Amino acid sequence: MLLCDVGNTSYHFLDGSRDYKESADSFDPATITKQVYFISVNSRVTQKLQNLKNWIDLSAVIDKSIYYETMGIDRIVAVESTQNAVIVDGGSAITVDVVRNGVFEGGFIYPGINAMHKTYKSISPALEYPFNLELNVEKLPKDSQNAISYGFLKLLYSEVLSYGLPIILTGGDASQLKRLFKEAKVDKLLLFESMKKLIIKL
Amino acid sequence: MLLCDVGNTSYHFLDGSRDYKESADSFDPATITKQVYFISVNSRVTQKLQNLKNWIDLSAVIDKSIYYETMGIDRIVAVESTQNAVIVDGGSAITVDVVRNGVFEGGFIYPGINAMHKTYKSISPALEYPFNLELNVEKLPKDSQNAISYGFLKLLYSEVLSYGLPIILTGGDASQLKRLFKEAKVDKLLLFESMKKLIIKL
Repeated sequence: MLLCDVGNTSYHFLDGSRDYKESADSFDPATITKQVYFISVNSRVTQKLQNLKNWIDLSAVIDKSIYYETMGIDRIVAVESTQNAVIVDGGSAITVDVVRNGVFEGGFIYPGINAMHKTYKSISPALEYPFNLELNVEKLPKDSQNAISYGFLKLLYSEVLSYGLPIILTGGDASQLKRLFKEAKVDKLLLFESMKKLIIKL
Repeated sequence: MLLCDVGNTSYHFLDGSRDYKESADSFDPATITKQVYFISVNSRVTQKLQNLKNWIDLSAVIDKSIYYETMGIDRIVAVESTQNAVIVDGGSAITVDVVRNGVFEGGFIYPGINAMHKTYKSISPALEYPFNLELNVEKLPKDSQNAISYGFLKLLYSEVLSYGLPIILTGGDASQLKRLFKEAKVDKLLLFESMKKLIIKL
């Protein structure tokens, strides 16, 4: 069984236990001939996939009425398999969704590590530092690298911890974010596990 | 007396009680013949000004040892005139500095409104919304516009309020940010008032 989660920048495949990525811009999905169960937040790619009979869109089996119209299907699928957690999905964006006692409370969208790095650089070349993911969140910074790291990361950290729920990190930057969220559980395949549960409903 | 605060994108002048801006890229500072007291965070502009005798750099009179080497002179000057406050300076970046009982505790740098708008747009065209500065900070969002507004603004709001100090908003986006920080005082000329105090020390 082949599973695929299409994001803004890549196709993320799971083939048995092996996961790999292809570029959203250059990969041709018609080169795959076996059955693929997919979700996609990338409207350009979704359009292409609608013409391919072996690509099966799992979003069809979800009751979207408890979510909202423009909510990314990746966030919905992650929430669907969760009972009590804050799901932090770190990719080109960092999405944060809160599920308490099986009820989706809402969520927010924050820029991803790479996007935020570019943002600071674009404001001033003097702010082009790598982020310090081991920053001391207890202390206001007195140097430039920590001043941007604190702005980007500590604010996210405080918000995520404020819900008082277990934290699940997923997405391409999960391991990076684990350095900040030391108490969190990393589950890179969360989406795929949730997709498998949806296939049964087909 | 002419005062000038040079930022990343503009020269901000105060001439008596009138303040106005010129582009950092296209304005020629040699066209001004009277005496100008200035501070600058823009190294390209600072270099030009060093050759102009009538432009007097106020950074020379500040004891920088209590700050840090790469801290923007605009932040230092704002802190110098403050006893108890969080100074939120909204421009191309939003800088946040905490002063308690006259002691600088540290600060952080967050992207400005315009920079963050571009960031979300660059992540996905689906995230290109204007920010809702009147968002409900008490409630997790369930729509895209509030999901990005919450990510950008609520995280900043919580952090700034956490210090339990009066909030001063300054910089070009002060009035915009006042819609979020309803309890804050807007003081657009904070830097200039502080610069005047420094001139006396020359």
